[in-house]
Amino acid sequence: MFELTLPSPFYQLKSLSLLWGVDLWVKRDDLIPQFYGGNKTRKNRAIFKKYFEQNGIPDVVITNGGVNSNHARVVALMAKQLGCPCELVLHGQEPLIDIPTNLLIAKIAGARHHIVQPSGIRGKIEELCEEYKSLGKRCFVIPGGAHTPEAAMAYEKAVQELTFAPDYIVHASGTGGTQAGLLRGIFKNNLETQLMGISVARNSQRGVAAINPLLDGCSITEESIRFFDEFTFGGYGCTTEELTNFVQTVIATEGMPLDEIYTGKAMYGLHELVKSREIEKGSQVVFWHTGGV
Amino acid sequence: MFELTLPSPFYQLKSLSLLWGVDLWVKRDDLIPQFYGGNKTRKNRAIFKKYFEQNGIPDVVITNGGVNSNHARVVALMAKQLGCPCELVLHGQEPLIDIPTNLLIAKIAGARHHIVQPSGIRGKIEELCEEYKSLGKRCFVIPGGAHTPEAAMAYEKAVQELTFAPDYIVHASGTGGTQAGLLRGIFKNNLETQLMGISVARNSQRGVAAINPLLDGCSITEESIRFFDEFTFGGYGCTTEELTNFVQTVIATEGMPLDEIYTGKAMYGLHELVKSREIEKGSQVVFWHTGGV
Repeated sequence: MFELTLPSPFYQLKSLSLLWGVDLWVKRDDLIPQFYGGNKTRKNRAIFKKYFEQNGIPDVVITNGGVNSNHARVVALMAKQLGCPCELVLHGQEPLIDIPTNLLIAKIAGARHHIVQPSGIRGKIEELCEEYKSLGKRCFVIPGGAHTPEAAMAYEKAVQELTFAPDYIVHASGTGGTQAGLLRGIFKNNLETQLMGISVARNSQRGVAAINPLLDGCSITEESIRFFDEFTFGGYGCTTEELTNFVQTVIATEGMPLDEIYTGKAMYGLHELVKSREIEKGSQVVFWHTGGV
Repeated sequence: MFELTLPSPFYQLKSLSLLWGVDLWVKRDDLIPQFYGGNKTRKNRAIFKKYFEQNGIPDVVITNGGVNSNHARVVALMAKQLGCPCELVLHGQEPLIDIPTNLLIAKIAGARHHIVQPSGIRGKIEELCEEYKSLGKRCFVIPGGAHTPEAAMAYEKAVQELTFAPDYIVHASGTGGTQAGLLRGIFKNNLETQLMGISVARNSQRGVAAINPLLDGCSITEESIRFFDEFTFGGYGCTTEELTNFVQTVIATEGMPLDEIYTGKAMYGLHELVKSREIEKGSQVVFWHTGGV
């Protein structure tokens, strides 16, 4: 089910390596070919697979996210491939002029969407479930952001795609599933790699609290959860001219896309940690590009 | 120079295979990681490499294309990596509100651009060359669309990335360099594969005339040049509701991007050729995704 063309590309960023004085590599999960790629593709494949093995094909798939959610786009495309309806409960404003890319793709895939306030997400999902249940349909509800143990497990497995054990892995950390999975993978493969999650929104306390429960069964200490909240630029979706300029420099230098919501902040954090010597000069660093349309 | 992470992904499109009754595979050159990928990345790497081997790093790089040219974007990013200035002579209208993505990336990479009428391209390039020459600078002028023998050679080589010899390869054919290269590769590797170029603009006569000179040194007959001009939808950049709907169906079915300028027309042509039995049912078909931002 949902075969992905893996491993995702893994190569050295030569120009930035020279400029920053570290041996910098990138793991391009944004270039996973299916479902427009990104970490939500790895995660939702694992989530669908588990459901399918236990229950078969669902009658309807329901999930939630922001109006331009990468997660919602992947879920809509996967539901379409299974031939089942998809309901998206999205918080934010109904876009009136420019429909954001992810929502556009989800609509092309035939998903229905419902715009709600953040406080109304749970209620709307319950309402939809009741409606379908009353018709005798089985609803498969996927948590927002694909934040589940199976999704984390997909990243535990992904660690094996690396062709060497780097000193550091740096990535954009949102709801914490990617970070938990990578940590588990590092632990299971006995690597000495330090994992550094760069928060795109949450403060450190909330970030760590979301990661911890996904480490069950691994004797990983809380000190191994390195969640940096100094590079959020004020919160989810917030940016500054400095971040814009930084992202543009990387784009120009390596011919590689970064966005200002996730990967741009993570790469900015990486550079700051190199400058502050938190990441040692000359070390091997992998930037895990988690993607996003 | 300009190492690319190759081979590009190659995998089966399972849902379309079932729907259309052929064994359909895709070669995703749009996912070449460097320089935002696409066939212009393969081509310009070959062009820069040859220049570099003969002349070293140029003082300035000049090329031309449309206002949202993929080729111009790649050249600008490559020039930036070499640290030399880049001048883009672009035909079309100066974009006033939304700057197209390729031009935006080229500008981020520091390229200068000049908007001209199509009739003014050659004159502007000559004018720029004179200016630089008078300063003692060496200009490297790259033909629009990367239409050169080295670029075709890059596609001759790319044929070796296929893991089996398909019955057909179908791709979007513009200036003809990709088609010439693939034909050469098929010939050199003694494959029985039929190559079908779907024109995105030119009529058959003009298309074939552009491909022929790039076949020098191979005893390929003109009958092997299969250039289909029935699926241009009226010309370069032209589209219809039918094409839009078709592209959206493929996006939804396979979770793979297609545009309406190049790859959408090529896939539409492929489907029509399957329907008309020009491509036999049950045969192995590779859709070569040439990309585009």
